Amino acid sequence: MVEQITSMDVDFAQWYTDVVLKAELVDYSGVRGCMVIRPYGYAIWENIQKDLDARFKALGHENVYMPMFIPESLLQKEKDHVEGFAPECAIVTIGGQNQLAERLIVRPTSETLFCEHFKSIIHSYRDLPKKYNQWCSVVRWEKTTRPFLRTSEFLWQEGHTMHETEDEARTETQQMLGVYADFYRDTLAIPAITGRKTEKEKFAGAEETYTIEPMMHNGVALQGGTSHYFGTGFAEAFDITFTGRDNQVKYPHQTSWGLSTRSIGAIIMTHGDDNGLILPPRIAPIQVVIIPAAQHKEGVLEAANALKDKLAGKFRVKLDDSENSAGWKFSQYEMKGVPVRLEIGPRDIANNSCVLVSRVTREKKFVSLDNIMDEVQAMLDQVHNELLARAQKNLEEKTFEAHSYEEFLDIAANRPGYIKAMWCGETGCEDKLKDVTGGVKSRCIPFHEDHISDVCVCCGKPAKHMVVWGRQY
Amino acid sequence: MVEQITSMDVDFAQWYTDVVLKAELVDYSGVRGCMVIRPYGYAIWENIQKDLDARFKALGHENVYMPMFIPESLLQKEKDHVEGFAPECAIVTIGGQNQLAERLIVRPTSETLFCEHFKSIIHSYRDLPKKYNQWCSVVRWEKTTRPFLRTSEFLWQEGHTMHETEDEARTETQQMLGVYADFYRDTLAIPAITGRKTEKEKFAGAEETYTIEPMMHNGVALQGGTSHYFGTGFAEAFDITFTGRDNQVKYPHQTSWGLSTRSIGAIIMTHGDDNGLILPPRIAPIQVVIIPAAQHKEGVLEAANALKDKLAGKFRVKLDDSENSAGWKFSQYEMKGVPVRLEIGPRDIANNSCVLVSRVTREKKFVSLDNIMDEVQAMLDQVHNELLARAQKNLEEKTFEAHSYEEFLDIAANRPGYIKAMWCGETGCEDKLKDVTGGVKSRCIPFHEDHISDVCVCCGKPAKHMVVWGRQY
Repeated sequence: MVEQITSMDVDFAQWYTDVVLKAELVDYSGVRGCMVIRPYGYAIWENIQKDLDARFKALGHENVYMPMFIPESLLQKEKDHVEGFAPECAIVTIGGQNQLAERLIVRPTSETLFCEHFKSIIHSYRDLPKKYNQWCSVVRWEKTTRPFLRTSEFLWQEGHTMHETEDEARTETQQMLGVYADFYRDTLAIPAITGRKTEKEKFAGAEETYTIEPMMHNGVALQGGTSHYFGTGFAEAFDITFTGRDNQVKYPHQTSWGLSTRSIGAIIMTHGDDNGLILPPRIAPIQVVIIPAAQHKEGVLEAANALKDKLAGKFRVKLDDSENSAGWKFSQYEMKGVPVRLEIGPRDIANNSCVLVSRVTREKKFVSLDNIMDEVQAMLDQVHNELLARAQKNLEEKTFEAHSYEEFLDIAANRPGYIKAMWCGETGCEDKLKDVTGGVKSRCIPFHEDHISDVCVCCGKPAKHMVVWGRQY
Repeated sequence: MVEQITSMDVDFAQWYTDVVLKAELVDYSGVRGCMVIRPYGYAIWENIQKDLDARFKALGHENVYMPMFIPESLLQKEKDHVEGFAPECAIVTIGGQNQLAERLIVRPTSETLFCEHFKSIIHSYRDLPKKYNQWCSVVRWEKTTRPFLRTSEFLWQEGHTMHETEDEARTETQQMLGVYADFYRDTLAIPAITGRKTEKEKFAGAEETYTIEPMMHNGVALQGGTSHYFGTGFAEAFDITFTGRDNQVKYPHQTSWGLSTRSIGAIIMTHGDDNGLILPPRIAPIQVVIIPAAQHKEGVLEAANALKDKLAGKFRVKLDDSENSAGWKFSQYEMKGVPVRLEIGPRDIANNSCVLVSRVTREKKFVSLDNIMDEVQAMLDQVHNELLARAQKNLEEKTFEAHSYEEFLDIAANRPGYIKAMWCGETGCEDKLKDVTGGVKSRCIPFHEDHISDVCVCCGKPAKHMVVWGRQY
């Protein structure tokens, strides 16, 4: 039998650990805080990469590769940036058996390296915009780590762009956040709140940080991706200038945006259930698993193989013709979150039909083999829509409005989820709310703010914004 | 005008540097020995990855991701391996502002990490084979560096497999070397000598190392990829065992194989000429560049755009409708090595035709727009074949036989290229030949050995093998 996993309702954290290990997404490594991403987990990341990369390239972005090391003096050029990242750096001090003259930081993010390069290639408005992206791994020394959610090393993409005008750079920043939101919804079947970060929660060195904040099944937020507008801060620190159309020397306007393997954590915790993983069809490494019934009977495996070959022209499909029992196979591929199970046995073959089973609803559908391509596509789309609707319902049901300080504390203590509440704009109130609730922080000022009351939920002074608050991974 | 580059015949090293910079493949970075791979260079790597990755997956390999750090104690588990790599390690000693209890090596290669993981997932013959691959960057602290050829950090793939039997592992080792040879010939249009390394030149920890050794235009060898059979050495050091079909506990047999961004260096130095880069069509980021003539005349840009859209369905195509002169554009795309140039002007449009120009021969071909897809495909294939034939000719013309010690020294001193000569099997003779020639080393014992004489070219004792010798990058 497939081993049991802990129930979500009993212990969500243990459920998560059980799923990532038993679905064979990751293995622990002997390296502190670093994970081994196993074939099934990495295949998800490859599908994420393929989807996002096409979106980036369609908008004119080009991929590059920067060094993995940052000389310490380079990291220190932008003051806010180094303050933000210095505490969590891994530092190379020895190379080729010698103490290095200058210490090298293993990149926690690559703004500084891109700036150094931009300085060498940007001279005129004709050199702009530069719209670059990089797929790589980065290192941030984390105290407590969990696979995908928080690891000392993680995989991500980081976009870095330079523009002639503030307008163009701000448009880029929001456009890329939009790309992330589209990707989460249309590819991962994950709805989310989007908006901008408060001053306190901004990226180190950014003028503005936009974020996508999907809610996990248990009501906790996961920062799903961020997009930053830097103004000309880095350009000034790195002395990057260009001659404009008006022959004046100016600083270019900069953005960066990133999305990481944390998104796999979001998939797991948004869609999974007590039987294991449920993968959104558009990134599932196996979209359809074929499980033959009575496979020793004449003609069954031939029919299953023929069906596999046919489906493989359009779908990612696997036939399990191992000697394991059908019951074991059902559990195994449920654990692995395969969206659609296809059962075929002697009676189905005689009827020119087969059975499709949705991983989400477990609904069984008897379909004719004549329409099998359309039927499979339809069930994959149905699974996507079911997942999205279910997650949307969860998000809505676990989003509350707080009209007063007391109500805020009550919700924070008793109802896991997001809290919509008004805010005066002062960091002090954010700090206080976080302290008294033991960790409820501002997620973002959403693009669409509701008017809940006139005053800050914390201090009672006039409110400037509605903020979405919540605990986070 | 496009800036001139140094002639190959005047200074091959300077020619190489000029090409990588002016074709915008790389930029130098402030990080010692590390390069910035620019969009045009990275696009070549992406095409290489796509091609190789499909070959690996077709043979049943799966991609994974291991941590980038190796705890020092883990690297030390296999004696020969650590001896080989310790001198060129970059070492992290500080993490999160604290001195680390155990130093972390930035991976120079990942055998040890794979072994640690294999130990956790291999228990029975049913768990074998494991056929994994990883795309990542690795670090080897090099004293003198050159873009693509030798850098402190480089991008590569590393395959790591575990097998039930020696036979199966040895077959895998040779099969993957064969994949590299096919890839070099059929995708990069680069012929090469393949064979196994002598004891002295083997990978640290390997029982057998196979290599592919293409010859650059100037007669110097470049190690294009290697494939290693490890026997059970690492498995024993890491205590990886499995229960066999006969219920006996055994060590699995291991391989690894790798190919890196050095292959881009091979492309440049095999195919380039005094006008710049020449890219093999199957990995060229731009396969066809369309250059309109008299583009201000009515209908020209419309026709050029329509042609671009048509070609884009099958080829990687760029239309340059900038204000630069046609002469500048010709030079520019020659420098960038675009295999086929397509010229179209008012007269061509009137004739329903256009002109195709091969980057290799500069042959012009007037073709009808009715057959344009076939004509472009034919010229791309022709360019591939021309490049391969030219490189094959270079390889043959610069390969010499040495029947005596004196002849060996004479060729080594005066005729750049490969030397075929007999060898007794002793490392002492390899060392001596390298010393007296100032760097001519054994490339490999080729799979097909000629019989040149009965005795070692160095010591005169009975010969065991024919070796191909040469200088290397």
